[in-house]
Amino acid sequence: MECKYVVFMGPAGSGKTTLTATFSDWLSSQGIDNVKVNLDPAVEYLPYDPDIDVRNYVDAREVAKKYSLGPNGALLASMDLLYGKLEDIKKELMEIEGEYVLIDMPGQLELFSFRSTGPLIVDRLSSKNRTAVVFLMDANFTASVENFLSILMLSHSIRIRHYFPQINAISKIDLLSPELLEELLTLKESPELLKEKVIDKGDPKYHDYINSIADFLIEEGIDFIPVSSTTGEGLDELFASIQNLISNLDEIETNL
Amino acid sequence: MECKYVVFMGPAGSGKTTLTATFSDWLSSQGIDNVKVNLDPAVEYLPYDPDIDVRNYVDAREVAKKYSLGPNGALLASMDLLYGKLEDIKKELMEIEGEYVLIDMPGQLELFSFRSTGPLIVDRLSSKNRTAVVFLMDANFTASVENFLSILMLSHSIRIRHYFPQINAISKIDLLSPELLEELLTLKESPELLKEKVIDKGDPKYHDYINSIADFLIEEGIDFIPVSSTTGEGLDELFASIQNLISNLDEIETNL
Repeated sequence: MECKYVVFMGPAGSGKTTLTATFSDWLSSQGIDNVKVNLDPAVEYLPYDPDIDVRNYVDAREVAKKYSLGPNGALLASMDLLYGKLEDIKKELMEIEGEYVLIDMPGQLELFSFRSTGPLIVDRLSSKNRTAVVFLMDANFTASVENFLSILMLSHSIRIRHYFPQINAISKIDLLSPELLEELLTLKESPELLKEKVIDKGDPKYHDYINSIADFLIEEGIDFIPVSSTTGEGLDELFASIQNLISNLDEIETNL
Repeated sequence: MECKYVVFMGPAGSGKTTLTATFSDWLSSQGIDNVKVNLDPAVEYLPYDPDIDVRNYVDAREVAKKYSLGPNGALLASMDLLYGKLEDIKKELMEIEGEYVLIDMPGQLELFSFRSTGPLIVDRLSSKNRTAVVFLMDANFTASVENFLSILMLSHSIRIRHYFPQINAISKIDLLSPELLEELLTLKESPELLKEKVIDKGDPKYHDYINSIADFLIEEGIDFIPVSSTTGEGLDELFASIQNLISNLDEIETNL
């Protein structure tokens, strides 16, 4: 059986690492073998025991020391060094068995997504037709309509850049008030309600602009899965969605 | 006379710091007083002599040492510490005279744009109706249509998040081949040509999706100023564009 890849992406602090841990536990509780890959050379603490840890190849703290680099330089150099270790990591990955490979991407999205090596790293470690990207957005971004539009636009930007089928997941929903969570869930059922929020809250000077962003996003479909790594809420729905996405890819492939 | 603010934003490596230096020189050569603000606590080398340097308040290298933090933690902590120093920086800024204040944002966009303190920092240091954001994108991103669409979507995401009038500038155009530069300039005149590129090069599986992204971007208007910090090309056009944008804001304000 060929394994499937789930790549957790999202801006710094969106909860990728925590979700990797809880999603892995959830898969195991369902009897599904899974492999956890930490791809962040700069992570200090992991709430899971990685099967593959990029820090065994490149450790950002050591890179900083060895080359006398500041934090910025150390991170950039680490990502470039990681690229050079890709074949070794891939080889290690091939030796481990699991139905699902969970890839926990580096803390900062920008370091790989908007640099040339990033998409190459993801391509090499996963498999084009058996990979789903889970794009994580912090629930705090949903509290204001402008921020929600902004993070949804970022999600599209990442999707085009990486060219993988992508699922949006809203993390940390346990931190939302019951009213905000209710609003969010209503929006999922009736995305056109986003327009009312825009009318309500938009700065008049930016009104037309924000309105057309909202139109575009509604047209594309505002789909997301609310999850919480604390309560476990949404993990079953996330799994179903990943499975659907990957089996659809298989079908497309078979029909070509 | 009240000063005007130009905020240089863009992902890591897009050339913000270099453009701050050359744009400042260009302004000075035109007899226009300008103040240069370095807002990156982690920058190692500056090609200009900053009038205000955030490293005098927060230095990411020292933060890393003092709190024994790795590169990631040091950057995040530095941004949070910077937020605490905002009033002091603002006070220093108020004491310096200049027609234009050039703000060179931290290397990594994500560290402020997609964290809660970021927009607050920009708001506090500039002035809502006298500020233009210059969003920089590396010319290398224009070489493939998918990457160009991706970075344009990122630009929209940032614009909604920060809520400032924004100009796109494409940096490092001296690195483009004459053919690619010609293509880029044609696209500026006739953005609908983007659709042809999408048809030519898009992955068939993603065709509809990429097509609708292109439609949205064309509808919004694909506007950008090609600049080169090496040859000085485009700096006059950038200046004119900033001036236009800010004087339009004045008018809007007067008419309200």
